[in-house]
Amino acid sequence: MSITLIGFDADDTLWHSESHFALTEDRFQAMVRPWSSPDVTAERLLNQERANLEIFGYGVKGFVLSMIETAIEVSENAIPVAAIEQIIQWGKEMMAHPVELLDGVETVIDQLNGNYRTVLITKGDLFHQESKIAESGLADRFDHIEILSEKSPDTYRAVLHRCGGTPATQFVMVGNSVRSDVLPVIEIGGHGVHVPYQVTWGHEVVADPPADADWHQLPSLLDLPKLVARLSA
Amino acid sequence: MSITLIGFDADDTLWHSESHFALTEDRFQAMVRPWSSPDVTAERLLNQERANLEIFGYGVKGFVLSMIETAIEVSENAIPVAAIEQIIQWGKEMMAHPVELLDGVETVIDQLNGNYRTVLITKGDLFHQESKIAESGLADRFDHIEILSEKSPDTYRAVLHRCGGTPATQFVMVGNSVRSDVLPVIEIGGHGVHVPYQVTWGHEVVADPPADADWHQLPSLLDLPKLVARLSA
Repeated sequence: MSITLIGFDADDTLWHSESHFALTEDRFQAMVRPWSSPDVTAERLLNQERANLEIFGYGVKGFVLSMIETAIEVSENAIPVAAIEQIIQWGKEMMAHPVELLDGVETVIDQLNGNYRTVLITKGDLFHQESKIAESGLADRFDHIEILSEKSPDTYRAVLHRCGGTPATQFVMVGNSVRSDVLPVIEIGGHGVHVPYQVTWGHEVVADPPADADWHQLPSLLDLPKLVARLSA
Repeated sequence: MSITLIGFDADDTLWHSESHFALTEDRFQAMVRPWSSPDVTAERLLNQERANLEIFGYGVKGFVLSMIETAIEVSENAIPVAAIEQIIQWGKEMMAHPVELLDGVETVIDQLNGNYRTVLITKGDLFHQESKIAESGLADRFDHIEILSEKSPDTYRAVLHRCGGTPATQFVMVGNSVRSDVLPVIEIGGHGVHVPYQVTWGHEVVADPPADADWHQLPSLLDLPKLVARLSA
């Protein structure tokens, strides 16, 4: 069994993303502090985000709408509208934020490109993901680019189909989310590699990752070429 | 010169969309009427939408954020936050609204499928477009489905490349927007067919459509098979 295709998640795997959400959430916490404790705010916001995911999907715009709704809820309509405008401005700043690559990303992709095909597989807002991919300068380094609305066994199967019908057993997926980058890939018979980021969004946290399945955890993306070589041997 | 590939826009070409935006805008007009005349509101909202398109892209979420910003602006911060929550609820209703096909859509696609390959080409929010395509029941009728963040000469070229490298001269695109469905297709050497919808969003209005280029206007999608046969002859 040999590996032929390597999939890379983008947000928090190739470049920083969750840290921008976390910074904005800190500002939001300070804004609604007059009406709500940090714990209550965090819980209400995560619940609102989860409910809105079903309606609006992933991304900054849904996050902005969730913050607005949470602010109105925890303040019991006492939040001034100027604060609502401020929340929207934070969203615009997030959308416009420069892409900052994580350490060693280009080196690792280039190392793997010699021996494997590579595909960037990201989920979320099409407009924002395309902007970030273009700005990252990484687009030409990948054989394929896939922007999905959700990462599930079915959407991964469709990606493999579009990548020339690669069998799942020949596919390694690397990313910072056990829920999105590892579990659905294992489910279809592929290899999942978890490289944790410094912050994990509550929605992506998995309480009990599988103990015995074909998944791997690495401290850094820089360790990926060695692992892939071992899986290929 | 023969036609081999027919592209269909989706919103306001296969199913109703702009009418839902227009209905929501009517409600929005009534909401801010205490502070602003209908003309001023319409102008400020369109300006806000245009500015936000560059930042947030197309779709309901950006529209909601534009309405919120416009409400705060025209009311000079006097709009109550309960109204902001109401605007967000309108957005949720729009996202959840059932897909209503336009008359004759299935018949026309089926007629063309016998002799041509077909591709659905839509722009906007990935999450919402995927939901609508799934709910429309039309997905299996198309050979390809393409969801783009923007319709431009370059993105149409990329679609033709992914559709087996179809030459633009063999490609007919039909849609309700001269700006998005006709002009960029003509620019790459394809055939543009404009089928107007009952409402056109201000941003998509083109003051002076080209007079002599290879574009066609039809009163109904039902007239498309005949036109395509003529272009193929």
